[in-house]
Amino acid sequence: MARLSLSDTDKQARDWFHRTTTDLGCKVHTDTMGNQFAVRPGLNNDAPPTYAGSHLDTQPSGGRYDGILGVTAAVEMLKVLNDNWVETAYPVGVVNWTNEEGARFPISMVASGVWSGDISLERAHSLKSVIPADDTATMKIELERIGYLGDVACSWEASPMAAHFELHIEQGPILEAENRRVGVVQGVQSYKWFSITVRGRDAHTGATSFQHRADALLTAAKMILASHKIASKHAALASTGILTLKPGSTNTVPGFVQFSLDIRAPQDKTVEAVESECKAAFSALAAGEDVLDINAGCAPSSRTCAVEWRTDFVSPATHFHDDCIACVQAAGADLCGTGDVSGKDIGAWGKLMTSGAGHDSVYANKRCPASMIFVPCRDGVSHNPAEYSSPEACADGANVLLGAVVRYDRL
Amino acid sequence: MARLSLSDTDKQARDWFHRTTTDLGCKVHTDTMGNQFAVRPGLNNDAPPTYAGSHLDTQPSGGRYDGILGVTAAVEMLKVLNDNWVETAYPVGVVNWTNEEGARFPISMVASGVWSGDISLERAHSLKSVIPADDTATMKIELERIGYLGDVACSWEASPMAAHFELHIEQGPILEAENRRVGVVQGVQSYKWFSITVRGRDAHTGATSFQHRADALLTAAKMILASHKIASKHAALASTGILTLKPGSTNTVPGFVQFSLDIRAPQDKTVEAVESECKAAFSALAAGEDVLDINAGCAPSSRTCAVEWRTDFVSPATHFHDDCIACVQAAGADLCGTGDVSGKDIGAWGKLMTSGAGHDSVYANKRCPASMIFVPCRDGVSHNPAEYSSPEACADGANVLLGAVVRYDRL
Ligand SMILES: NC(=O)NCCC(=O)O
Ligand SMILES: NC(=O)NCCC(=O)O
Repeated sequence: MARLSLSDTDKQARDWFHRTTTDLGCKVHTDTMGNQFAVRPGLNNDAPPTYAGSHLDTQPSGGRYDGILGVTAAVEMLKVLNDNWVETAYPVGVVNWTNEEGARFPISMVASGVWSGDISLERAHSLKSVIPADDTATMKIELERIGYLGDVACSWEASPMAAHFELHIEQGPILEAENRRVGVVQGVQSYKWFSITVRGRDAHTGATSFQHRADALLTAAKMILASHKIASKHAALASTGILTLKPGSTNTVPGFVQFSLDIRAPQDKTVEAVESECKAAFSALAAGEDVLDINAGCAPSSRTCAVEWRTDFVSPATHFHDDCIACVQAAGADLCGTGDVSGKDIGAWGKLMTSGAGHDSVYANKRCPASMIFVPCRDGVSHNPAEYSSPEACADGANVLLGAVVRYDRL
Repeated sequence: MARLSLSDTDKQARDWFHRTTTDLGCKVHTDTMGNQFAVRPGLNNDAPPTYAGSHLDTQPSGGRYDGILGVTAAVEMLKVLNDNWVETAYPVGVVNWTNEEGARFPISMVASGVWSGDISLERAHSLKSVIPADDTATMKIELERIGYLGDVACSWEASPMAAHFELHIEQGPILEAENRRVGVVQGVQSYKWFSITVRGRDAHTGATSFQHRADALLTAAKMILASHKIASKHAALASTGILTLKPGSTNTVPGFVQFSLDIRAPQDKTVEAVESECKAAFSALAAGEDVLDINAGCAPSSRTCAVEWRTDFVSPATHFHDDCIACVQAAGADLCGTGDVSGKDIGAWGKLMTSGAGHDSVYANKRCPASMIFVPCRDGVSHNPAEYSSPEACADGANVLLGAVVRYDRL
């Protein structure tokens, strides 16, 4: 799947969502971030709906499950409720959040972040695409272009939720390795995104000795290695997914490099520690000093690089709501027929877990109770066309999603 | 200057060259690589012309002297010969070589390489642009587009030369540091260009442990550092000027990286040694093994990357022709008024030197006697908009060029 947020193919998926949920009897509205909300009325419509949802955008070369499973299973939930003439106590909704991936516009979960009030509409609307061929596009321009700049304010007040449930593939190897059918997600690890700029000096590769160079790419390479070593020490993660340089010629030492840095760990304080150690290490490396023995055996240089950090995105560790976790656990136990259905204990069918990836449920959880359901995926592979969850795993997830929403509705 | 080879602005510079040399009384022809040859008749026109020349293309963000000085000084030479009613014994020519930089089409000196018979016309014509916005353009398409696909065969037989002299800025710091006016260039160091491809696996940055990653960018960063350490050990140079990756998203571990590697040293055998040590080191790093202590402190991974090398360009060490070197030295001594004008010794005004950069004189030297003249440039900076040589230095170079050509003509 290559369905970058607000692209022409994303418009097609949105059109499908609008048409399908309308046909299923929902009232559908779109907010100023392009989030789509489909609401199926309940017996009493004076209170907000209980939502199921996720996102339909993907990575540049992503899979067919990440996000998509959560939305399609939620649409399936609407069909099952209709087919069985179920009248819920309160309304039930399905939401498709915009640009969850942060792959085209580089803040993940940006549209649920605006909805929760954590990210300003202005900042989100003016976010620029990081796709090189397309780097003048902003979220607002693209929302207008594809006709999905809605007129409802993007906020938890204008589109309130009683609760938010999200089915997702695990994107990691644990459920598969432990042979468990369902993950009951208690929270999401902490993460921060940065853009690092390294400025050196363009120079001739053949006529400039190492001593006279300020090589921004060699320095960036050392920084990427340093971030990996520092994260390894803290049992955290540090990753670089984007790197651009100038001028980009075989025989010119690059004078300019920019790269992304994504730091994650279960606890906020670990992310902070990795960040501050990276800051110190990058400054030392830019100045030509050694850290972590990285410079051992490198020719010294009399010139230095400059390094700048920009923080693009902060997502502190999230703890989901006990009521929602209990609904997921009870629905899982009910489906899988083992364990303590009361929700206090969990059987061999499932696992209480923390998500390594961020999800819109992180921001939803700030304004309403939320939790998530994970299902196993092959080899733990995600953000990759090889991503795969079996039809049985998808069905398990959809059943638990339905069970959790219906349980919460009764609460 | 940003005048990439065969761009619209390169066409403007070519038009200027054609018009100006025609107006100065030359016969001008263009060959199938777009090389432009302007010939001023001599008393006897039965033998090939003695040429002065260089190139008018630049790096993506280059300077105003690299190559350009050599062509403009050669045009000035034509004017001086005309203004002084000089009749040379044989014809004198000026040549503008195509794509010397190798910045847009990634073989430097490619058009003089076709002229000398070292590079096939087919290979050169089908070379693809490495500029991301423009990566479907080939040399042939662009030659046709700007109207410079000439009809004269690109060869030393169709456009023969008695000798080739090239004035160039030094692109290094030595002449300035030693306060010398003119470099008498005896040869050019050896170099080789490679494209390295590293294949890993796209994976989620938040949900994939270091153990489960095959991180193509982290591996490439280690390789770039390793190449630098290996070159440092051999007092050679290794440089990466281009690096591209896929898919290019903050939260996806890149599964694909390609980067350029430019290895240089005075002797061919040193380049070979650096190449073979890099090959061993890159293979080890791709396989997750340690070399040069680079992996110390990195979390181990159970997955490996694959690495592939492609050799793009080989330019062995070049030794220019004694007759041409002697003409340059005599012209320099004559201008600067010191030293042994006979050419056997050199005074404080000049320095016998080897070029770190490649030049079209490398290929010219394979089919006719050649040498070069260097003039100092500020801080040794080149391939950078800050490139600068004083008007006095440029005039020195132009005078030595004229003196060398006239001396060779008399030989
Ligand atoms: N689930 C998912 O891939 N979310 C993208 C945000 C992140 O980088 O964790
Ligand atoms: N003189 C010059 O910059 N030539 C480009 C070829 C090289 O990379 O050395």
